[in-house]
Amino acid sequence: MASPEIEALTQALAKLPGLGPRSARRAVLHLLKKREAALGPLLSALMAVEERLSTCSICGNIDTTNPCGVCADPRRDARALCVVEEVADLWALDRSRLFPGRFHVLGGRLSALEGVRPEDLAIDSLVRRIAEGGIDEVVLAMNATLEGQTTAHYIIERIERFPVRITQLAHGLPVGGELDYLDEGTLAQALRARRPVG
Amino acid sequence: MASPEIEALTQALAKLPGLGPRSARRAVLHLLKKREAALGPLLSALMAVEERLSTCSICGNIDTTNPCGVCADPRRDARALCVVEEVADLWALDRSRLFPGRFHVLGGRLSALEGVRPEDLAIDSLVRRIAEGGIDEVVLAMNATLEGQTTAHYIIERIERFPVRITQLAHGLPVGGELDYLDEGTLAQALRARRPVG
Ligand SMILES: [Zn+2]
Ligand SMILES: [Zn+2]
Repeated sequence: MASPEIEALTQALAKLPGLGPRSARRAVLHLLKKREAALGPLLSALMAVEERLSTCSICGNIDTTNPCGVCADPRRDARALCVVEEVADLWALDRSRLFPGRFHVLGGRLSALEGVRPEDLAIDSLVRRIAEGGIDEVVLAMNATLEGQTTAHYIIERIERFPVRITQLAHGLPVGGELDYLDEGTLAQALRARRPVG
Repeated sequence: MASPEIEALTQALAKLPGLGPRSARRAVLHLLKKREAALGPLLSALMAVEERLSTCSICGNIDTTNPCGVCADPRRDARALCVVEEVADLWALDRSRLFPGRFHVLGGRLSALEGVRPEDLAIDSLVRRIAEGGIDEVVLAMNATLEGQTTAHYIIERIERFPVRITQLAHGLPVGGELDYLDEGTLAQALRARRPVG
């Protein structure tokens, strides 16, 4: 019996990962009761993000600037490039502060089942970045899934003609595990033990 | 290493009940990736709610209209009034569709420990509503806690001079509850309120 506006807010929140209908209702109630302390800040933050949101034209990261904060950071080692499936993976690796280089987001993984072909991913732009030179090492950080590994092999075929060292995250990753769910220790281990391929 | 705007959004979401820092990050990523399908609707819903949000001047409910949807609903039985501690309790009872009357939100419960006195709660306005007449039954739906019951007793003292029937939610075993999982307080209450059967 909530008003249409409150109902719409509850439904928008209920669609967020980690929130169901029940916790969305509790979150809405919290927002309504704490108008100044909770609703206001959330609204301002959402407006600021919505206004500035863009996809980085270099790496595919999502940020409030373009180029993104990672690509624009001069302290980053431009000679090391880490290729990930999703923005979430970039964020997870970036949070770990273990990789000093830059990133390239594919936007998914090859999948015969889901009909995802090479041209559906940011693979051509990856090849162009490598062809431009200045990159010594390409770290393939695909998920340890069949599709992730198929994608890695396809990329190796596309880039092995360039004078770069191609490495891959060590398979200390649990089979079927997805990067952005892993704890930092596992990530650190996998990154430290990365090995050359191709 | 997220931008200040994305960091602010993550922190605003992390403060919602049911979301921690980790799930807030995942929620933010979801919003950024689904700008049209998730971020947009959430932003519109928040703006609409923020613009219209008000506390009902009759019952204390929070809604996007004043009087609130419950108070303005002509199908509601104006002769039955249910007194609750918090807006959350009103919503829970309203969702259950079990109570056909209207509500009165106290805004808390009497507490010597937390220094909550009668004048800190919407008790005077409750007495006025009852004094105005037209109400046959007042249902006290305080929590089954010491403070809830203290509040109920205080309200009974204040309103027993009026020609209304005063009732209280039954206390006892929750439906489906197993005896050996219940706390002692609930058991004691259920035993004390035992009634003849057969
Ligand atoms: Zn970038
Ligand atoms: Zn109302």
